[in-house]
Amino acid sequence: MSRMLNDTPLTRLLGLDLAIVQAPMAGGPTTPELVAAVSGAGALGSLGAAGLDGETILKDCAAIRALTDAPFNVNLFIIDDGVRDDEQIARAHHALQPIRDALGIATPPTPNRFKPSFGDQIEAVLEAKPAVFSFTFGCAEETLIERMKSAGVKVIGSATTVDEGRRLVEAGIDIVCAQGSEAGGHRGTFIGEFEQAMVGTMVLTPQLADALDVPVIAAGGIMDGAGIAAALALGAAGAQLGTAFLRCPESGAHPAYKAAIAEAGEGDTRVTRTFSGRPARGIVNRFMDEMAAHEDDLPPYPVQNALTGDIRAAAAKQNRPEFMSLWAGQGVAMARDLPAAEVVRLLAEETQAALGALG
Amino acid sequence: MSRMLNDTPLTRLLGLDLAIVQAPMAGGPTTPELVAAVSGAGALGSLGAAGLDGETILKDCAAIRALTDAPFNVNLFIIDDGVRDDEQIARAHHALQPIRDALGIATPPTPNRFKPSFGDQIEAVLEAKPAVFSFTFGCAEETLIERMKSAGVKVIGSATTVDEGRRLVEAGIDIVCAQGSEAGGHRGTFIGEFEQAMVGTMVLTPQLADALDVPVIAAGGIMDGAGIAAALALGAAGAQLGTAFLRCPESGAHPAYKAAIAEAGEGDTRVTRTFSGRPARGIVNRFMDEMAAHEDDLPPYPVQNALTGDIRAAAAKQNRPEFMSLWAGQGVAMARDLPAAEVVRLLAEETQAALGALG
Repeated sequence: MSRMLNDTPLTRLLGLDLAIVQAPMAGGPTTPELVAAVSGAGALGSLGAAGLDGETILKDCAAIRALTDAPFNVNLFIIDDGVRDDEQIARAHHALQPIRDALGIATPPTPNRFKPSFGDQIEAVLEAKPAVFSFTFGCAEETLIERMKSAGVKVIGSATTVDEGRRLVEAGIDIVCAQGSEAGGHRGTFIGEFEQAMVGTMVLTPQLADALDVPVIAAGGIMDGAGIAAALALGAAGAQLGTAFLRCPESGAHPAYKAAIAEAGEGDTRVTRTFSGRPARGIVNRFMDEMAAHEDDLPPYPVQNALTGDIRAAAAKQNRPEFMSLWAGQGVAMARDLPAAEVVRLLAEETQAALGALG
Repeated sequence: MSRMLNDTPLTRLLGLDLAIVQAPMAGGPTTPELVAAVSGAGALGSLGAAGLDGETILKDCAAIRALTDAPFNVNLFIIDDGVRDDEQIARAHHALQPIRDALGIATPPTPNRFKPSFGDQIEAVLEAKPAVFSFTFGCAEETLIERMKSAGVKVIGSATTVDEGRRLVEAGIDIVCAQGSEAGGHRGTFIGEFEQAMVGTMVLTPQLADALDVPVIAAGGIMDGAGIAAALALGAAGAQLGTAFLRCPESGAHPAYKAAIAEAGEGDTRVTRTFSGRPARGIVNRFMDEMAAHEDDLPPYPVQNALTGDIRAAAAKQNRPEFMSLWAGQGVAMARDLPAAEVVRLLAEETQAALGALG
């Protein structure tokens, strides 16, 4: 039996039983119950906290700790507050009008701020002191990374290119997550154009593992133990899976979102910036198709994300997945409707079987 | 030491020493010398014969056989002759005018036919009787597949989705090559839109291996032994590498093309249909950028491919890579400037080391 899954630079650094990470998925799916179930099963659960204010982060971390003593991760987006361009916002509202009409909702007033205070979020993370803090969309400032590390919190940054990986290592992170083009949800690209950083997991992982002297986690298209074994073969110290946990009962994904995942095939996802202003991969639906013509004129994240908040809330309330953001990776067809701890157990079992067969 | 690389359903079916395939790369790179060197080293060399007439196919197969007794593969495109739309051709010539001006060449007369006769190509393959016939861009007719198999020639079809894999198996092929989105050169997609079939190797391989009852070869982004080990972990019976052989001295790639590969990074390739009328991945250059505005109005393959033939020939003669088609996969930065037999030897050694470390 191979020890590769239980004893890698990642498991040693973070004190994990398994070199498996449940991806942070902001916007609902990563409930404290999901994070705790994954961490309790020996993998690393991750709270997608980008949309949460400081108070909620503290509350959620306490809820996780009430369920497990195991290490877990809190993830934030590194992004500025967004510049208010009233003309661009008016055009976005105009483009969104047919969607609001279909949902029978009025255009709400434009909010004063487009995202929770990053400073408050950071203070909450430092107070909650999870075992791991991870970030994406940018490179955190060195002083912030140093504060986390001084507090005993390990830091993971997300890279979509080798250049980004190098930048993260220079800034002092402990671990790099390699986000391949197959991955669901938002692209983490922060240097150059996102189209140039749509690099497959098969290519990105070995190049980052080769270029960097910190452990690399492979992410994107990994759905089962064969995928985890492949990630380890490529030189990764572990594998991160998001879509693989979306159908779990502990996942906070809307029932209609879970149903859409159950029905989707490998060609049913696309990268769009229509929901949030930032490229993200999800299951193609009516919202994406109808908004596609405005793709290049919409405000950047977090402005567009804030502007579509009422639409996504109404779509959830009315049970209409055609207007929800159905983030999912290309491996969506392989997601399993099982409790999270059972998914982790199966992943470990399958990985060991795959590794054993190869050796 | 793992036996996985030397004893898979692929090696058994084709009588190979190694579960490694050198990808057919039409248009020059796959010289008889390259094919023979790869096959002679125990992998499967492939002649990219789509652009060759029947007589040249016979000559090249004889040249390969003069160099090695080992099995090799001949690859063709399954595509009709192309419909002549004179207005569309005129618009294409107009769009190409600035490129021809830069090269100092005149617009040649439009050819009477846009590709070699498929019937002649097939008769040549049946006469040459290589161990393997592979095809892409479509699904060969069942009668053709049956003729090949009756002649003792094994047949490989190329799939970019699970649906395509199923269609190929129904038609009677022996082996499916899974072409992930990382792959260089032309996309093989033949059902639905190509954008929907841009699925990463990490996702496509396990789904095809799971869905089909024939051996699957993984292709796209595989550049070294770690990648081959990953492909085997994903359930593939072998791995196909193209870009990994482009820099070999036996490769017929133009010296300026080889130099461009030596300098390219993982984000330097893009899928374009400007050169041939069919989506294909290559290193971004001036031709791609200047023609991008016309992307959607150009004639389909093989018409556009024929129309740009004089440009590519002149660019080669003038040593100007900015106007050549520099097909390459996303793993381009990992290509090695070594003799083909040495590349095969290193791939085998690295794969065994990776498999041994995992088991």
